[in-house]
Amino acid sequence: MEKIKVGIIGFGFMGHNHADMVQSFDEMELVAVCDTNPEQLTDVPAGVKIYDNADDLLKEDINVVIISVPNPLHKEMTVKAARAGKHIICEKPAAMSVAEFDEMVKVTQECNVMFTIHHQRRWDYDYRRMKAVFDQNLVGDVYIIKSQLYGVNGNMHDWHIYPEMGGGMLYDWGVHLIDQILQMVPSEIDTIFADVKNVINEKVDDYFNIIVRFKNNITAEIELGTYYLTPKRGWFIGGNKGSAIIDDFSGAGKIVRTKHLLENVPGKITMTAAGPTRSFGPPEPGLLYEEPLPDVECSHRDYFVNFINAYYGKEELMVKNDQVRRILRFLDAVRESARTNKAIKFE
Amino acid sequence: MEKIKVGIIGFGFMGHNHADMVQSFDEMELVAVCDTNPEQLTDVPAGVKIYDNADDLLKEDINVVIISVPNPLHKEMTVKAARAGKHIICEKPAAMSVAEFDEMVKVTQECNVMFTIHHQRRWDYDYRRMKAVFDQNLVGDVYIIKSQLYGVNGNMHDWHIYPEMGGGMLYDWGVHLIDQILQMVPSEIDTIFADVKNVINEKVDDYFNIIVRFKNNITAEIELGTYYLTPKRGWFIGGNKGSAIIDDFSGAGKIVRTKHLLENVPGKITMTAAGPTRSFGPPEPGLLYEEPLPDVECSHRDYFVNFINAYYGKEELMVKNDQVRRILRFLDAVRESARTNKAIKFE
Repeated sequence: MEKIKVGIIGFGFMGHNHADMVQSFDEMELVAVCDTNPEQLTDVPAGVKIYDNADDLLKEDINVVIISVPNPLHKEMTVKAARAGKHIICEKPAAMSVAEFDEMVKVTQECNVMFTIHHQRRWDYDYRRMKAVFDQNLVGDVYIIKSQLYGVNGNMHDWHIYPEMGGGMLYDWGVHLIDQILQMVPSEIDTIFADVKNVINEKVDDYFNIIVRFKNNITAEIELGTYYLTPKRGWFIGGNKGSAIIDDFSGAGKIVRTKHLLENVPGKITMTAAGPTRSFGPPEPGLLYEEPLPDVECSHRDYFVNFINAYYGKEELMVKNDQVRRILRFLDAVRESARTNKAIKFE
Repeated sequence: MEKIKVGIIGFGFMGHNHADMVQSFDEMELVAVCDTNPEQLTDVPAGVKIYDNADDLLKEDINVVIISVPNPLHKEMTVKAARAGKHIICEKPAAMSVAEFDEMVKVTQECNVMFTIHHQRRWDYDYRRMKAVFDQNLVGDVYIIKSQLYGVNGNMHDWHIYPEMGGGMLYDWGVHLIDQILQMVPSEIDTIFADVKNVINEKVDDYFNIIVRFKNNITAEIELGTYYLTPKRGWFIGGNKGSAIIDDFSGAGKIVRTKHLLENVPGKITMTAAGPTRSFGPPEPGLLYEEPLPDVECSHRDYFVNFINAYYGKEELMVKNDQVRRILRFLDAVRESARTNKAIKFE
């Protein structure tokens, strides 16, 4: 089978990442890259053609382009590539607005090219373990799902410090964390309530906390802080049969259960530093026990495996444009909620 | 100076607690207790008179009564005691509604007796340490305050399982956690958004998460789960100069700071189990450093020390009725938000 010929538009951080990924597949061949900044083109792999603009790259005999330019250029590059008849993988956030994205979808449909967004974090190990807990109903009826990402590097990098470039953490990691939750919980959303703050960065968000109330009565809380100073990729799924927890970047975690429910809380005070309590006294020895989280096999390669299979008509694209559109609408609701202090009705 | 003669109405869990407390003070004398349930009266300390009803107890030569009956009886007992000319300490939650509380305040004012609610958790060690962080501005401009209480005993005790008795965790611990936050943040509240759930208990709340957006741009999050299965009394105060953390019931914790802000996040990928990331890579060695939390001296005795001083006109009562009324109004907003999924405008 002939290799899929790939070009990369925008050879910055993610462009390099994509080059490595493409070259790791027998099914794909990296034909050309372009960037307007010559400094980004000093380490292009041997045998790969180099351009300083997308128009010239698009004249190449290429089947697929990967668009990894700064966010405000996604639309222009997508339209160009579609008109040149190329299939398209575009970086996230897909677009600067829902309207922009709708136009991108319209043009790619008219041009009859594949168009999908690089939501590779659906294949994150920590996420997949928690999704397995959810899908396999391992903690009973779920009432709360928490997704937490806490860092120490308060500052943003490169163009991410500029709002007009689509900077800030909502656009950077936010769309991933939102996408993960939306793919986990099969329900419409009732309301979105969000806090979005600039803690260290003057112009772009570096802290957000989003409360998603799904119509199936599950609440999800998505919280990120770049300046939290207690680094962690955390997950918590609470159900009426147990709790599932991931507490660091390794994806290590556990399920915790109780041997039995207490018939009644003992009528005794437990002294803690906080003073006496009954309800929150320490558990009797052996009451809590742990089980391993489900193990899963996954990696960001899986995104491209799916793309290649879809390219050859063997399966559907997993990252669908209606899902991506929902994320962008979700982002709008987050911003509106943060601005108005209201819970935004969503679906 | 003559001792303050004290009676206790309702000799259950908290009644016993109060008896010990009163007897530990030289300034107070426990004169009588009453309870309608003879089983609760089997271990009344020697020399203390025993009654099976409040009316008879109130005929005693008593200066102060402590009311520790189930919540729906607070009003009736407060009115009785006030009409009998007794000063009153009443258990929390003060009343079943704001209207009930207003009536209690009115009657006690008419009868010219002291009336205050037992919000002794203002003197919890963990809370006071975090309040010191806040008051002394130790982490710079604060953007988020989290107060977390997670337990393993899903079930409630005694009458706390009945909604009509004022059961559930909002009434039990919720009023304390809310009071602490309201006493910490000197600002009006813009909105309250809350999730309230029954996870294990059929009829009363055993999980809540309350997002308080203050007008001074601080957000507080108050979360409690009796069936969280990862026991913890947690605090987090995030500011632009550091984070303050308490992570267990002992009140142990720390302040974490960074030596410097990064000029720019390094252009390198950090591989984590979640896949590559730059913004959330591990900190360079030595970037983060810790400081101790401020130490504080406090105990629940301090509530009674203040009461005794106020009784003798030496200082004002610290738990004031307008503060208590604000908590009850806050609770109404929590319930309304949980019912409607709306953020409730508060002040």
